[in-house]
Amino acid sequence: MAVNWENLWSERARGIVASDIRDAFKLTEKGDVISFAGGFPSPEAFPRGDLAQLGKAIIEEEGDVSLQYGPTEGYTELRTLIAEQMREQGIEVGADNILITSGSQQGLDLVSRVLLDPGDLVIVEQPGYIGGLGAINNYQGEKVGIPLDEEGLRVDVLAERLIRWRRQGRRPKMIYVVPNFQNPAGVTLSLERRRQLVALAEEYELVILEDNPYGELWFDKAPEPHMMSLDGGGNVIYFGSFSKVFVPGMRVAWIAADGAVIRKLAIAKQSADLCSNSFGQKLICRWLKAGGYQDHLKELRGLYRARRDAMLAAIREHFPKSVKYTVPQGGFFIWVELPHGMDAKAILPRAVAAGVGYVPGEGFHVDGTGKNTIRLAYSQASIPAIETGIRRLGRVLADEIGGLSFAI
Amino acid sequence: MAVNWENLWSERARGIVASDIRDAFKLTEKGDVISFAGGFPSPEAFPRGDLAQLGKAIIEEEGDVSLQYGPTEGYTELRTLIAEQMREQGIEVGADNILITSGSQQGLDLVSRVLLDPGDLVIVEQPGYIGGLGAINNYQGEKVGIPLDEEGLRVDVLAERLIRWRRQGRRPKMIYVVPNFQNPAGVTLSLERRRQLVALAEEYELVILEDNPYGELWFDKAPEPHMMSLDGGGNVIYFGSFSKVFVPGMRVAWIAADGAVIRKLAIAKQSADLCSNSFGQKLICRWLKAGGYQDHLKELRGLYRARRDAMLAAIREHFPKSVKYTVPQGGFFIWVELPHGMDAKAILPRAVAAGVGYVPGEGFHVDGTGKNTIRLAYSQASIPAIETGIRRLGRVLADEIGGLSFAI
Repeated sequence: MAVNWENLWSERARGIVASDIRDAFKLTEKGDVISFAGGFPSPEAFPRGDLAQLGKAIIEEEGDVSLQYGPTEGYTELRTLIAEQMREQGIEVGADNILITSGSQQGLDLVSRVLLDPGDLVIVEQPGYIGGLGAINNYQGEKVGIPLDEEGLRVDVLAERLIRWRRQGRRPKMIYVVPNFQNPAGVTLSLERRRQLVALAEEYELVILEDNPYGELWFDKAPEPHMMSLDGGGNVIYFGSFSKVFVPGMRVAWIAADGAVIRKLAIAKQSADLCSNSFGQKLICRWLKAGGYQDHLKELRGLYRARRDAMLAAIREHFPKSVKYTVPQGGFFIWVELPHGMDAKAILPRAVAAGVGYVPGEGFHVDGTGKNTIRLAYSQASIPAIETGIRRLGRVLADEIGGLSFAI
Repeated sequence: MAVNWENLWSERARGIVASDIRDAFKLTEKGDVISFAGGFPSPEAFPRGDLAQLGKAIIEEEGDVSLQYGPTEGYTELRTLIAEQMREQGIEVGADNILITSGSQQGLDLVSRVLLDPGDLVIVEQPGYIGGLGAINNYQGEKVGIPLDEEGLRVDVLAERLIRWRRQGRRPKMIYVVPNFQNPAGVTLSLERRRQLVALAEEYELVILEDNPYGELWFDKAPEPHMMSLDGGGNVIYFGSFSKVFVPGMRVAWIAADGAVIRKLAIAKQSADLCSNSFGQKLICRWLKAGGYQDHLKELRGLYRARRDAMLAAIREHFPKSVKYTVPQGGFFIWVELPHGMDAKAILPRAVAAGVGYVPGEGFHVDGTGKNTIRLAYSQASIPAIETGIRRLGRVLADEIGGLSFAI
């Protein structure tokens, strides 16, 4: 009897379906479409020459280790280098507080795995990073979205909600936040709100997941202190990554947390993938020790700032005035709000036909709202492509808004 | 208020604890201990010269892709190469039936994730691979062990158990099997039993997880056909890996299965780690296309056969006659059974003091039995080290058995 897989999926698996965003990516992958969909770093930013040489040396000189299984927690040398970097940023950690993960996505998966039971209440930003939402979904957490504004998460709204939940006897377990140059909205959490959020977390014994892939990619000034450095009680689990500042293809990121959390996560990681790839860890170690990391960051900041500037200038010139957008101070993303009643998902095929792609914002929402929103990534396209793409998109949006007013 | 993490762990996380085996590894990592604990491939088997050159070329020539995020399913080129290899081994699959995973451990995690609800009945080999048991644990499957003999899983015992469960209205969901040169027991499932198992799986709508990391590392003749090639109804999910035949440090393995399963697993993988590392996939593609894979396999077979022979010869010479052991026809492991009443975990510190390490077999059992068993890996130690280590272990065991008879 042939297996009927539909009968066999776990409860969890029934709840996970392909995201709109993957569909959007596929749609925008056509040859002559200028895509602002993928939040990928620019390949021009990869230190290829260095890596070709360092990689060769690593295999020749220490291939017996760099090609072998490594420790589940990651190489102590890399964990030590990361801990040093974090201490320079005001976070008092040692190597024992660091777990190397196969990208921050694995970090989010492991933390959800060890903290979430089905039905547990999890607070998320709305709009929020789709990968974080996916990890929570996988462990059947119940997501509640808190809105953002230009200063990031509306901590005042959260505070009210926490009071209400306490009255109802409900206890949220964790809150997932991307404080710097947020994905997808591009906004940054203000210092005052960081302090408030840390205080709320302590008051309500709430775990803060502080996911910071973009923090080093600031344009004018470094972001405010990490919540982990403002935190007194150890409530914060911090996610750092080399994907945006080095290369994503090696899948090397880390979690920083209380030693008890790291130990539990390491046991979970053992069953998840045994260890992260050894070669990638060794490569990052050598590259960090070779010096030049700060210069590399300066280059990246310049590269992405120029692209942000180009996209903002093109938006100002070509978008209808009724379209709102955020002005990111770092990172990869601009968030666009179309007039109410518009549907970015319905517009996408027309945009693609006009030669430009984006991600409809609805998928970053947990309550079915956000149909009129769009995420634009300026990280990958060249400046001329950004100008052309935004001009094309502006024309499509102008047509749609024109059509909309007729329809009204 | 400081977080009390013990209050916050998920049900799942409460159930996962550090394994004895990890402790055993740590114990055997002392400088002058000859360790038969780790089932790692031999670093001498890594094609380092080739990889240093190929790796450099990949970064120089296609660094924009090989250092970037890749598709969640893995590169089509690699999936196509794997499907071709599998078709040569009698399994009718295409690239759409292949998902690249971050080691087979991730494959086991993802399959458990999409198939298991807490309490689901899972059949495992006893003794069974600890990583497979761990993945099932992580998703709170209820494990039932079926014993092995020299021909692998006792399918007759399984058949009786299935009849009994059917009468009780219980339905096992899947069975996890390492058919070739099993970890930890070194035994291989006979052709007749493969056919019987496939027939049982069809009759009971049971999913077979066929995990085959060692299949290519045979000593005298290639193993029997894969169950996936004997399978009519698509009940088999196959796990293949480059860790033992190429290098483990790149963390590249694959799952082969029905397209519906691959699509579900890909969605789960998206939330687990987005994608496997791109560089490792590209490296394997180039290395496979460069030819020489069959010659490389021949070398590996010779290397590991010589080590098996050395270990068996040393066991015959130095172990007390009351100690039983398996004679593997491939792979990395010999399984040792001490006289009843002996406790391999209690003996380990004395063995380490005498300069030799192993893994106590108890951790490969799901019912607390197996205290008198030991897993020996001959894959990593040189032949002189194997001879010395087994002589040392023989002396410790002789002392213990001597002591045992006095105690009786």
